[in-house]
Amino acid sequence: MRRARIGIIGSGSCTREAYALAEEVGRRVAEQGGVLVSGGLGGVMEAASKGAKEAGGLTVGILPGDDAEEANPYVDIPIVTGMSFARNIIVVRTSQAVIAIEGGYGTLSEIAFALQLGVPLVGLQTTFHDEKMIKADSPADAVKKAFKVIKG
Amino acid sequence: MRRARIGIIGSGSCTREAYALAEEVGRRVAEQGGVLVSGGLGGVMEAASKGAKEAGGLTVGILPGDDAEEANPYVDIPIVTGMSFARNIIVVRTSQAVIAIEGGYGTLSEIAFALQLGVPLVGLQTTFHDEKMIKADSPADAVKKAFKVIKG
Amino acid sequence: MRRARIGIIGSGSCTREAYALAEEVGRRVAEQGGVLVSGGLGGVMEAASKGAKEAGGLTVGILPGDDAEEANPYVDIPIVTGMSFARNIIVVRTSQAVIAIEGGYGTLSEIAFALQLGVPLVGLQTTFHDEKMIKADSPADAVKKAFKVIKG
Amino acid sequence: MRRARIGIIGSGSCTREAYALAEEVGRRVAEQGGVLVSGGLGGVMEAASKGAKEAGGLTVGILPGDDAEEANPYVDIPIVTGMSFARNIIVVRTSQAVIAIEGGYGTLSEIAFALQLGVPLVGLQTTFHDEKMIKADSPADAVKKAFKVIKG
Repeated sequence: MRRARIGIIGSGSCTREAYALAEEVGRRVAEQGGVLVSGGLGGVMEAASKGAKEAGGLTVGILPGDDAEEANPYVDIPIVTGMSFARNIIVVRTSQAVIAIEGGYGTLSEIAFALQLGVPLVGLQTTFHDEKMIKADSPADAVKKAFKVIKG
Repeated sequence: MRRARIGIIGSGSCTREAYALAEEVGRRVAEQGGVLVSGGLGGVMEAASKGAKEAGGLTVGILPGDDAEEANPYVDIPIVTGMSFARNIIVVRTSQAVIAIEGGYGTLSEIAFALQLGVPLVGLQTTFHDEKMIKADSPADAVKKAFKVIKG
Repeated sequence: MRRARIGIIGSGSCTREAYALAEEVGRRVAEQGGVLVSGGLGGVMEAASKGAKEAGGLTVGILPGDDAEEANPYVDIPIVTGMSFARNIIVVRTSQAVIAIEGGYGTLSEIAFALQLGVPLVGLQTTFHDEKMIKADSPADAVKKAFKVIKG
Repeated sequence: MRRARIGIIGSGSCTREAYALAEEVGRRVAEQGGVLVSGGLGGVMEAASKGAKEAGGLTVGILPGDDAEEANPYVDIPIVTGMSFARNIIVVRTSQAVIAIEGGYGTLSEIAFALQLGVPLVGLQTTFHDEKMIKADSPADAVKKAFKVIKG
């Protein structure tokens, strides 16, 4: 059986608090055997990848540009789309559950795609809200809920 | 100089009221010489295309599927992407201003992309709101504001 | 009924001979009521759009970048994909028949997609050859064969 | 430093000989520490992924559809694009070198993209040929040349 794929979405330049939250989310995803999927750039994406790597996890970064080198240093597998923001939908489709932290309009597009496609969406201190978003009050709670919804 | 390109975004299955609003938006876009851009399917997209065609306008439908025949009958130029919802971002990028009417999560993804990319966004009875959205209180008002923001 | 959509594929920087051939192809497509579809940039794409415009036709340019202004001046409707070369497949899918003139590797990717998707492909002095490509010996012959295969 | 990413391209339904070649290519990529990238479906893609897995390697499958379950059983990380054949260009961009085996028109589109984008391309019993393709006469030779050109 394949390892669970948990996506982390959030801004490429985030607050210190969001960075810390994302790092813990990444660490916990890795500790529970999940593959960490993100957009591969900075901010929340970098923090989650860093946390996952430090816990010995595997990280995938689905990049908007045409150069693998734009990935943050904690991405093991850069996926080079060259399709700009159209890669947002690939981040969502590739994930079996998505955890959103803070987030700007790019994150909002991913939240919208998750809701449209029926990919389970967990929110942790998100900028945007929706009744179908599963609320979490800590990184531990977010990761627990994400894995639970996958295993159904 | 090229004709202005005005995008209409909204749900593929909409209320009767939204259909009427979209039809009038389409008609007014055409009367003012604009090209009507949409996702090419039903509901708000069909209504706007219908209104534009009946006023002698030109309509473009940027389709998610791989068959031009999925376009509604009021689309002059079907653009066949075969890329599913990733076509949403092409609808937004192709438009010089976007008018949103009602809308579900697909529309929300387009709203998010417009806000992220800086494409002027006019809202008419939208389901979703954002402080950067230009509010309109009628089809006439929406089309007037969309053309105004293009001509800057 | 919608107007026929004929795609022209070829290099963005072409020989003078290819430019002349493409211009005549564009002119003849317009004279027969077709919409001219291309990748919207220079060389063969520009020449075909120019020919079509000068005959009063309608031209669509499906662009790789994120700026409508990268379209050549003969494109009426720029479609802004922001997806780089992934737009090549949209050019092919949007066309009911494709005419290839000369061409580099980008054109080869479009030829491959046309052959894979079953979009009729007419070749006029092409760099690449395939047994399923319909050979034409002049612009008039190419356009005649493209329209014929659509009406089939 | 990231592990090298080697792409394998070829038909989804291939000859028994191509299957055996691809399986050995996959095995050798894994033995030399590379990540095996493919389009994630059957034929050459499956064989290469199988070979890599049996040698303890890591495999990525960049899928055309919207369902991770369409991946062959040897794919560790399915990337779900939902973009149909537009995923071909992502396979090429993600790879630091590409090895082609046999191949139909889909493979030809990937060969064209590799040549256009300057991604080193090694051919092993390919259906299509190009002077810029590096010829290999065995799986061992193909993998050796692919790694060499990356480290170049």
